[in-house]
Amino acid sequence: MKESLLLTPGPTNVPKRVLDKTALPMIHHRTKEFQGILERVNANLQKIFLTRGPVMTFASSGTGAMEASITNLLSKGDTVIVVTAGKWGERYREIAQAYGLNVKSYEIPYGQAVTLEVVEKALSEHREAKAMLTTLCETSTAVMHPVREIAQLTRKTDTLLFVDAISGLMCDPLKMEEWGIDVVVCGSQKGLMLPPGLGFVALSDRAVAAIAKSTLPKYYFNFEQTIKAIKKNDTPFTPAVNLIRGLDEALLMLLEEGVENVWARHARVAEFVRQNMKVLGLTLFSQAPSSGLTAVKMPAGIDSKDLIKTMRDQHQVVMANGQGELQGKIVRFAHMGFACTLPDAKTGLDAFTDALKKAQSVQAPAV
Amino acid sequence: MKESLLLTPGPTNVPKRVLDKTALPMIHHRTKEFQGILERVNANLQKIFLTRGPVMTFASSGTGAMEASITNLLSKGDTVIVVTAGKWGERYREIAQAYGLNVKSYEIPYGQAVTLEVVEKALSEHREAKAMLTTLCETSTAVMHPVREIAQLTRKTDTLLFVDAISGLMCDPLKMEEWGIDVVVCGSQKGLMLPPGLGFVALSDRAVAAIAKSTLPKYYFNFEQTIKAIKKNDTPFTPAVNLIRGLDEALLMLLEEGVENVWARHARVAEFVRQNMKVLGLTLFSQAPSSGLTAVKMPAGIDSKDLIKTMRDQHQVVMANGQGELQGKIVRFAHMGFACTLPDAKTGLDAFTDALKKAQSVQAPAV
Repeated sequence: MKESLLLTPGPTNVPKRVLDKTALPMIHHRTKEFQGILERVNANLQKIFLTRGPVMTFASSGTGAMEASITNLLSKGDTVIVVTAGKWGERYREIAQAYGLNVKSYEIPYGQAVTLEVVEKALSEHREAKAMLTTLCETSTAVMHPVREIAQLTRKTDTLLFVDAISGLMCDPLKMEEWGIDVVVCGSQKGLMLPPGLGFVALSDRAVAAIAKSTLPKYYFNFEQTIKAIKKNDTPFTPAVNLIRGLDEALLMLLEEGVENVWARHARVAEFVRQNMKVLGLTLFSQAPSSGLTAVKMPAGIDSKDLIKTMRDQHQVVMANGQGELQGKIVRFAHMGFACTLPDAKTGLDAFTDALKKAQSVQAPAV
Repeated sequence: MKESLLLTPGPTNVPKRVLDKTALPMIHHRTKEFQGILERVNANLQKIFLTRGPVMTFASSGTGAMEASITNLLSKGDTVIVVTAGKWGERYREIAQAYGLNVKSYEIPYGQAVTLEVVEKALSEHREAKAMLTTLCETSTAVMHPVREIAQLTRKTDTLLFVDAISGLMCDPLKMEEWGIDVVVCGSQKGLMLPPGLGFVALSDRAVAAIAKSTLPKYYFNFEQTIKAIKKNDTPFTPAVNLIRGLDEALLMLLEEGVENVWARHARVAEFVRQNMKVLGLTLFSQAPSSGLTAVKMPAGIDSKDLIKTMRDQHQVVMANGQGELQGKIVRFAHMGFACTLPDAKTGLDAFTDALKKAQSVQAPAV
């Protein structure tokens, strides 16, 4: 069976070097060998998140890590601002609501990026806000939000900036410490080139200081215990040993290439895909596109599910449909992580072009 | 490097058949291929937990699954009875306390099993209790608690029985539905022969009915959404795709052997280890030993860490020390999951015997 090319916004293809590490014979986690791995992983995660603060790894999906950022840094009734323009910003809002936070929601239309005007307005209307929650790459619309500029505003206030960078990290630039972002959340199966199963949360100094004030209940996701454990190259609970051995390898690969080079590769491939979509006469959905994926609007009368099916069945290329109201209306063509190369993008474009042609020929049969 | 024999109470050695599945090229989780795997996994989990109710799989450690059982079935202020005789019963108690439950704790001395007298007393003193929390195999003391008999008492009341079977399942017998247990929690890295990274929760009908009454906050661990997703061979959040492919294989292996045969193998190996410890003139710590591991008391003047070091460094055999106050006083010799065979136990016993001799010769040098 031919291996599929996953041009979906996660999971993405995983390098064989990484997969091989995930299948090594089991070792115990309370050993010098595994402690050595944890020490290297924790140091290398800081080089990827670009922070000197703690970067915590949990056995969980990215959503679990988002939830952990809420339960460990906030308390019931705290005001939080959510600035959102898509499904993933809405997920952060839902989690905040599930924990009884006083949520102030600022919605930007799908396809657009969060504007600094809205951020400034929100911060001035809610000076009491403990946190602002937003997204780096909004994969539902393929938009990159200007988190660098947002942080320039939040860092002057007492409002902590939480960024869901689950699909954005290592695709779109993010310099956590330099830009003054307080919380960065990530997942393993996107830019980090791993199978799903790990979630990450990185904290600034002032986010670490907020832990002691939080009264929301928590147990498994516990930042205080996790930070203590990191200092001893340990984990509070049994870690996902083999996924972490894979993480070790994936981080080495990313650092061999260099963080800035990885970002540049994503920008280059993204530009290539966008240009080719324009050549095909198609319009992009996103008005501020991320380098992790491209959302392409379907011409009138064409359903994206037909293209996706043709690509999958005839080309072994997997792309994603739109979500919610965008279902059928866009194709989401990811160039994320290990599958972000010009040859992979070319394969994807060839499949897409063929599928589009077939969909159009069905729609308008030759006279 | 020679592969270590993990005779620790988790992680245990993982069969190559299973490891190979965890390293397959990545596939997307919203595909027919992965839905087929989920369908088979969910059906086979029911054959392992011996229930027709839902068995949910989470990307998390076993502790996350324990926490999920509390947050999804109970509410703040609910009375819960904890019957405990070791570190893992205490963990369930800690989680209940972290969520503001009204915890009634009944402690049995370490090394002993929970008695039915204590269970009856607890149930009669707290008829209002929504749940009783206990443990199948208390790995800190190598005790098996009589969950079958406990369930005969709880099933006549409105108190749900929650059993932490993280290290017990597939080592000690447990017939969830027949015995009338309401909640069974498990982890992947013990009797289920997988790497760590998955947690499981199985529910009886009356446990499912309790979900709607629970008001504790939750998001990632959400039983209502997870049960809905299971019915569609789906998951609410991105699952740990490759660990689940490994789970699929491990469940097939266990079912090929047969559940009762797996239990019988554990009982046979456990008996072999216990008999040989007696031949060595040693005493067992546990007064009601589990079939998953044996806890052996150290003779006076011998520190278990010395034996553990000799076994690890000279025999590549890994066993566990006691925890907390039992540190240095016992060796925990596991025969759990894939490493529960007579040859593996024999290798463990040879290493143990050699290490004991060396420790004794240091203690009393030849005249």
